Amino acid sequence: MTNFQEPIRDIAHLAHIELQTPRPNESLEFFQGLLGMTVVKSEAQSVYLRGWGEQQLYSLKLTEAKQAGLGHVGMRTFSPQSLEQRANHLKDSKYGIGWTDGDYGHGPSYRFMDPAGHKIEVFYEAEKYVTPDHLKPGLKNMPEKYSARGAAVTQLDHINLFSPDVDADSLFYRKYLGFKLSEQAVTETGKQTTAWLHVTNKSYDMAISLDKTGAQGRFHHAAFKVETPEMVLRAADVFLDNGIYIEAPPNKHVAGQTMFVYVYEPGGNRIEVCSGGFLIYTPDWETVTWTPEERKKGLAWGSPLPATFHTYGTPDIEKSSTGG
Amino acid sequence: MTNFQEPIRDIAHLAHIELQTPRPNESLEFFQGLLGMTVVKSEAQSVYLRGWGEQQLYSLKLTEAKQAGLGHVGMRTFSPQSLEQRANHLKDSKYGIGWTDGDYGHGPSYRFMDPAGHKIEVFYEAEKYVTPDHLKPGLKNMPEKYSARGAAVTQLDHINLFSPDVDADSLFYRKYLGFKLSEQAVTETGKQTTAWLHVTNKSYDMAISLDKTGAQGRFHHAAFKVETPEMVLRAADVFLDNGIYIEAPPNKHVAGQTMFVYVYEPGGNRIEVCSGGFLIYTPDWETVTWTPEERKKGLAWGSPLPATFHTYGTPDIEKSSTGG
Amino acid sequence: MTNFQEPIRDIAHLAHIELQTPRPNESLEFFQGLLGMTVVKSEAQSVYLRGWGEQQLYSLKLTEAKQAGLGHVGMRTFSPQSLEQRANHLKDSKYGIGWTDGDYGHGPSYRFMDPAGHKIEVFYEAEKYVTPDHLKPGLKNMPEKYSARGAAVTQLDHINLFSPDVDADSLFYRKYLGFKLSEQAVTETGKQTTAWLHVTNKSYDMAISLDKTGAQGRFHHAAFKVETPEMVLRAADVFLDNGIYIEAPPNKHVAGQTMFVYVYEPGGNRIEVCSGGFLIYTPDWETVTWTPEERKKGLAWGSPLPATFHTYGTPDIEKSSTGG
Amino acid sequence: MTNFQEPIRDIAHLAHIELQTPRPNESLEFFQGLLGMTVVKSEAQSVYLRGWGEQQLYSLKLTEAKQAGLGHVGMRTFSPQSLEQRANHLKDSKYGIGWTDGDYGHGPSYRFMDPAGHKIEVFYEAEKYVTPDHLKPGLKNMPEKYSARGAAVTQLDHINLFSPDVDADSLFYRKYLGFKLSEQAVTETGKQTTAWLHVTNKSYDMAISLDKTGAQGRFHHAAFKVETPEMVLRAADVFLDNGIYIEAPPNKHVAGQTMFVYVYEPGGNRIEVCSGGFLIYTPDWETVTWTPEERKKGLAWGSPLPATFHTYGTPDIEKSSTGG
Repeated sequence: MTNFQEPIRDIAHLAHIELQTPRPNESLEFFQGLLGMTVVKSEAQSVYLRGWGEQQLYSLKLTEAKQAGLGHVGMRTFSPQSLEQRANHLKDSKYGIGWTDGDYGHGPSYRFMDPAGHKIEVFYEAEKYVTPDHLKPGLKNMPEKYSARGAAVTQLDHINLFSPDVDADSLFYRKYLGFKLSEQAVTETGKQTTAWLHVTNKSYDMAISLDKTGAQGRFHHAAFKVETPEMVLRAADVFLDNGIYIEAPPNKHVAGQTMFVYVYEPGGNRIEVCSGGFLIYTPDWETVTWTPEERKKGLAWGSPLPATFHTYGTPDIEKSSTGG
Repeated sequence: MTNFQEPIRDIAHLAHIELQTPRPNESLEFFQGLLGMTVVKSEAQSVYLRGWGEQQLYSLKLTEAKQAGLGHVGMRTFSPQSLEQRANHLKDSKYGIGWTDGDYGHGPSYRFMDPAGHKIEVFYEAEKYVTPDHLKPGLKNMPEKYSARGAAVTQLDHINLFSPDVDADSLFYRKYLGFKLSEQAVTETGKQTTAWLHVTNKSYDMAISLDKTGAQGRFHHAAFKVETPEMVLRAADVFLDNGIYIEAPPNKHVAGQTMFVYVYEPGGNRIEVCSGGFLIYTPDWETVTWTPEERKKGLAWGSPLPATFHTYGTPDIEKSSTGG
Repeated sequence: MTNFQEPIRDIAHLAHIELQTPRPNESLEFFQGLLGMTVVKSEAQSVYLRGWGEQQLYSLKLTEAKQAGLGHVGMRTFSPQSLEQRANHLKDSKYGIGWTDGDYGHGPSYRFMDPAGHKIEVFYEAEKYVTPDHLKPGLKNMPEKYSARGAAVTQLDHINLFSPDVDADSLFYRKYLGFKLSEQAVTETGKQTTAWLHVTNKSYDMAISLDKTGAQGRFHHAAFKVETPEMVLRAADVFLDNGIYIEAPPNKHVAGQTMFVYVYEPGGNRIEVCSGGFLIYTPDWETVTWTPEERKKGLAWGSPLPATFHTYGTPDIEKSSTGG
Repeated sequence: MTNFQEPIRDIAHLAHIELQTPRPNESLEFFQGLLGMTVVKSEAQSVYLRGWGEQQLYSLKLTEAKQAGLGHVGMRTFSPQSLEQRANHLKDSKYGIGWTDGDYGHGPSYRFMDPAGHKIEVFYEAEKYVTPDHLKPGLKNMPEKYSARGAAVTQLDHINLFSPDVDADSLFYRKYLGFKLSEQAVTETGKQTTAWLHVTNKSYDMAISLDKTGAQGRFHHAAFKVETPEMVLRAADVFLDNGIYIEAPPNKHVAGQTMFVYVYEPGGNRIEVCSGGFLIYTPDWETVTWTPEERKKGLAWGSPLPATFHTYGTPDIEKSSTGG
């Protein structure tokens, strides 16, 4: 047992994402009115929002920008020591960027760029949510009353990042952040087309999908969780009734086995509302590998995701290149 | 087959109830904000509301009054002929009151007093709901978009009236309105303590419960339907979070097998949010009779309804007598 | 009001279907093991099955035959008088066949052939289900304990018949059986491609779909109901796990708004497991007409049904013609 | 940061429990037929069972014995090193018992006795489940097909142990096993009456409840998880239909916010079927403390648990003392 290497366990959870939108008002109405999120702060070009079940101050920073896409991703460490360890590890790599003074609601963060060009930060210090009186829940172990508005999403669940080299990117997250690879889809020659990675008991907190355009830093989607599969169906009704573009109707993923519905929020970013799926408790989970043959079968119950699912991302390159 | 008597089939459905409330603003906030109903009209001391799935203009007329209780109940006939037949039948009885000119949203009605002293009307002509643009649904066979607010009740489901003589009252509804008796609870000597009656395929559209005080015209409860049992659980969360008194937490009725939660709306009237239960399709359903022994077992899964369920009604006699 | 014509209200409900199967053992295993139905009788080449919530003896007669397809459909009248009226009406038409002595579990029936060539019977007398001890439910207003096996379908919900002339067929059911047309899909020139018809409060008990092959008497599908949309998802899991071909994964119909999953049972007949949808209470429902433009949008949440849904039926003509 | 003490993170999950039953056949029928579990092994006086979603070989060892109660509890470590660390820590305490050679399906375990007298073991090496052909799932990332039988429980969720000194016992699990205290109920003087403890993201993997009899080693209950709150309701139906004693009908816990139903399996042990509840992701969760005042409010929606919930455990002391 002399060669045993202690695994990295420094990242507690995916904390927040910053999404950029060219239509800030409509995007805000989507997240607040239709997803049922709560605004905790508006500042300059950004609005900060939270799901009613978040154990943190916010999970979404929505920022006005020329085009849709990912601003950055924030991950929270277990402790100040964990943060230091991660920062030190990254500093010695070519990926490190440097320390920030923090942002609204959290303390200093260490920023880096993943191999696919997404800006990520890790931080520990975080301000707690002080529930305003009108949102105080019936039970004090809840952070906020059930939102009972629109899809009523509970919290940010996971993100999916586009990458021109999934193998390189997934390896990076395993090596530098301590993520584990629960499942992967591969080509005939074994190259990853999607990688599912986790630090919590969820079967994935992050997915990385092949961006065939070869572009850097594009965003695939962010997923917000609802409590039951039935609520995913209801979310679809809310989107239908309110004119939101549904890219893929409710169905069940093979990997992770989550129920989902995919839409484009008015700013253009792909958003998933999801529920269910399995948790990984066993310490010796073996990565499940899906072959092209198996992937051809489509979703769990047999129909495929639409073609755009594998090509559309934000920024929408085609649109922006022709737009310029 | 010479003696065959054609059954009365003139009542299409329970249409609306008028509830009286001494706290009109809080009651309105309850029905609109927490049950998720839509206001279609405010006029003098009354507000008219509808559930998002109602195939009629409204199901609830909420009227300011000194004390809580039932204003009246409206039932819709299948046709003008049906209305005429019912009116003629009632006119010749001691229960008839007379014709009205109608009310907001419906035409002339024939009014009568049931043996227990509740004011009831039957009518046929009715104004259709013209869905305002901002509530237009995604699918045109829906009357309105899913409300996605609070408990998001679909529609009025049934009412329960208190009566000092359940046998007399249930017989009246069978004889004069064509209701059928699907289930009944009886005493050791066979007197009804509750009667469940229906005109639609629902196993009950109306229930009559024994008012041991002997008072006339008291109201037991009105039930609004949600689409699934899960939504009944969520309704309970909404009530808990918003300080509404929950008289009986979600559970399953023996009769009808509906999932329910019972609360008192701020004006004092008991309101049920319900789902599920069975429909009766067979033409030779035999009334199911529950003995006191069987009723002692409580609800379907074995715990009893609270004692107040069998005593509290509106107006709240104890309160009003001492109040005077 | 002199010209008022009393509507026909003689059919109480869709009672049973006889399905033919070339693979009787596998089909039986499907309905019993995977749909969770109960066998009430095996006789000669037929097995009779019921859902746990049926208020009748059985809803499915499964008969061994050379090829898949519909044997016949049984509908129950409200009374002996209703039966006589329907028989008399049909006798005078070109559709009548004649009286039968009945079948296992029901008395004399009058048989006829609808314009599209499906054999239908109406009957009134019916034997009640005597629940065997091991299936006695916890509550005596249930016909049988919850099956808790496979998809655990409650009961037969509706059927869909293929027809080369939907207008003619739907008119026949309206004129001779008293069905009402709740919704219809039409071509540019206004010819029906699907008609949805009902006699109960359900928005449809029967649908008729255009068979472009022009063949007579083909069967589109039978639908069995489960209690909640969530159970439709679970049914899909059961089918996936047990190698049943899923033609269309769970989604929501536009017409009727039911959640569904479509599969082919091992004998080849298309079977739907469904839940939800709306009930029609209003007596002045106006037929909802869907244009080709609207139908192009696909299912409620935006993806289309597979092409086979509009072409495949039993008997499978292509297969049987080449097979000969 | 010099005094920072690395937390213990050696226990991956609650692995299995051994339950003793004086009625082995009826108990087996309960777990296999009504909970829908799979038997993986029968050996001497014991049967080993698993839920369809378990990522391990089994979670329940059911052993014939003179009286009901807990045999032992097994917990799995993250690695061989974790096991060694836990064993070493416990060896130096008064709680250690010693190493075993393992049992069916797992390797050597270190056994100890918690302060309240329950036998616990920790182990790492474990045999994987080899899914038999007839139980192979549709998707290979599932360990087994959905059981579709009875309540269809997914997996063991948590246990609740009776203890005469909850403070001592919960401290033990925190100090020696690395559990964290998510919630606690306390007396006026601050002594714990219930402690909820976790090692995974679940808000509790184990609870400890005050045994007012002062007895050592009694068992309160084991909980098996179903996928949705709706399935808890359905489990209650299964229990009702099959004559299982329901101690507490479906309702929602305040602590953890799980939906539950409590029954006694035929051997006498209390079993919970549960779903939902929240996961803890935040690394700085602060223990939620419930006062006697708050506990008086009962369950989430306002009714209390039955008195027996606070007194009944296995072995049933009253019964066994009078029995001898």
